[in-house]
Amino acid sequence: MRRPINIAVLGATGLVGLEFLRILEERSFPVGEVRALASARSEGKKIPFKGGELTVHAVSRDAFKGMDFALIAVGDDVSQEWAPIAAEAGCIVVDKSNAFRMDPSVPLVVPEVNPEDTRGHQGIIAGPNCSTIQMVMALAPLHRVNPITRVIADTYQSASGAGLDAVEELWEETRAVANGKDMQPSFLPYPLAMNLFPQIGGFSANGYCSEEIKLINETRKILHEPGMAISATTVRVPVEISHSEALHVEFTHAMSASEARSILADSPGIAIIDEPFENQYPMPLFAAGKDEVFVGRIRNDLSHPHGIAMWVVSDNLRKGAALNAVQVAELMMEQDLL
Amino acid sequence: MRRPINIAVLGATGLVGLEFLRILEERSFPVGEVRALASARSEGKKIPFKGGELTVHAVSRDAFKGMDFALIAVGDDVSQEWAPIAAEAGCIVVDKSNAFRMDPSVPLVVPEVNPEDTRGHQGIIAGPNCSTIQMVMALAPLHRVNPITRVIADTYQSASGAGLDAVEELWEETRAVANGKDMQPSFLPYPLAMNLFPQIGGFSANGYCSEEIKLINETRKILHEPGMAISATTVRVPVEISHSEALHVEFTHAMSASEARSILADSPGIAIIDEPFENQYPMPLFAAGKDEVFVGRIRNDLSHPHGIAMWVVSDNLRKGAALNAVQVAELMMEQDLL
Repeated sequence: MRRPINIAVLGATGLVGLEFLRILEERSFPVGEVRALASARSEGKKIPFKGGELTVHAVSRDAFKGMDFALIAVGDDVSQEWAPIAAEAGCIVVDKSNAFRMDPSVPLVVPEVNPEDTRGHQGIIAGPNCSTIQMVMALAPLHRVNPITRVIADTYQSASGAGLDAVEELWEETRAVANGKDMQPSFLPYPLAMNLFPQIGGFSANGYCSEEIKLINETRKILHEPGMAISATTVRVPVEISHSEALHVEFTHAMSASEARSILADSPGIAIIDEPFENQYPMPLFAAGKDEVFVGRIRNDLSHPHGIAMWVVSDNLRKGAALNAVQVAELMMEQDLL
Repeated sequence: MRRPINIAVLGATGLVGLEFLRILEERSFPVGEVRALASARSEGKKIPFKGGELTVHAVSRDAFKGMDFALIAVGDDVSQEWAPIAAEAGCIVVDKSNAFRMDPSVPLVVPEVNPEDTRGHQGIIAGPNCSTIQMVMALAPLHRVNPITRVIADTYQSASGAGLDAVEELWEETRAVANGKDMQPSFLPYPLAMNLFPQIGGFSANGYCSEEIKLINETRKILHEPGMAISATTVRVPVEISHSEALHVEFTHAMSASEARSILADSPGIAIIDEPFENQYPMPLFAAGKDEVFVGRIRNDLSHPHGIAMWVVSDNLRKGAALNAVQVAELMMEQDLL
């Protein structure tokens, strides 16, 4: 039997950090010691775990010693500082932030899509952005059969993608509008309840926001297709959990909707919900809390002879973040890369 | 001075019907008699209008006599029955339903886009679907300069597009979730608060829902481009008023974002909100109650050498419905087509 695996979770009090712990509880991961780490502000907080509780410790160099993995879900700057320290301390780091994703020496991994990329790691492996993960999960199986030439993705992204503050703000606003009161956004740029806005992250000179650029660049890196034509509009919507994506995909050769459906149905981590005549398609409210990437509305794109349109929904905190990172750790163990 | 114009409003108690009356109050339309008509169920209801009130009458053949225009916003079946009766009674009918839009003998008109199409009318003029109107408003000025070859549209459509019952259901659900209670949808297929779903109308065998097919077919008819390549995914979102659309447009020749912005800025009925570095872009909460079609996020589409991406938002009850119909009536008067 395999030895227990020690895991440090940095950002343990955040939405993704808490999800890391829930997923470690649920899966048959051979957990040894788990250290819940966060900023000094959260020191001493208690987090329920496996019937007991974990005490949150302030992150420090010593906190990573003796740990096999460091699962990190914090802001880019904090990751930039602490991920290399954790790696030096001997951890394999699976980092959820944007800090290392496009670093050529850092693998950017979705285990179902590019598990082979873990092999060259130098201590840090990056998890892609939430909107990227669910998109490449749906694209990669099709791309292997019939190379994709172009993707247009328009997204419907939940508040939880922006963290706990955004979720709390959405709920506060929802209670306010339900009682006929004004909304007072403080964290997000605009009211989100009964509204939506086409901005996630800051803008570049080319008019794209950072979420769109991540979706484009990360997809190219994960699929090993640096020149793939991709465009996106990323939109924040008044939903608590799960991102949805309308995808319009062009292939090298024609592909029927039934072929695409059949390929995706046989792909690990994908669940097809696609019975339009029974009003069955993926929706964020029902994807929340689940592990799968849900795909539906699979149809020939009427605007292109080699096109397929589809609708992809997944829990952005699970497969879009924490679950993917835990799966990376599981993959490393399977490959004896510890 | 022009003589007063008599107007029958059929569906006067619905969301669009009430908007007809508000718009007739606001604009310098030379209103004579206004008759508020609805089903027998609503007979005797009072609707405030110009400081007084209108009494709702049950629709009848006689109710259209002596009227110049019949503005109709009812279900397809009811329009199918009553629009021809109103036309026979001598009204020019501007019908908002889907009943006549694709009839080759019925003009389908957005006054800023294809005013010339009113000339061949035979008593009934159709107003396009809400999601079509705002899209063609943004496409037509560009198409005149540089013919469009393909459009991909993914939509974010408000509850009010499904009528008063849907709006009331969204508010009930919002109050329910704000108080931690379960949602019990009765009108829409699924809960809409904190959720969204990729279905508007019933599905066809090709996997497209009726809203998507309307968007495709109506756009082709209005632009006189029966072969234009168009695809869409139409999605209902938890917003009360205003539809939003992410558009990805391909042109015959390359077009810069600044050229597109400049053409649209000079187009009637369009307002540009496009200062991403100041977080300025159109949003449904702020478009509600306004007449313009708001366009922003105008940028070169990174996935196509002749592509432009943009974000279009408009009040679906005003320009998307009632305002467009009143503008059609104004256009007929200007052209002396009464």
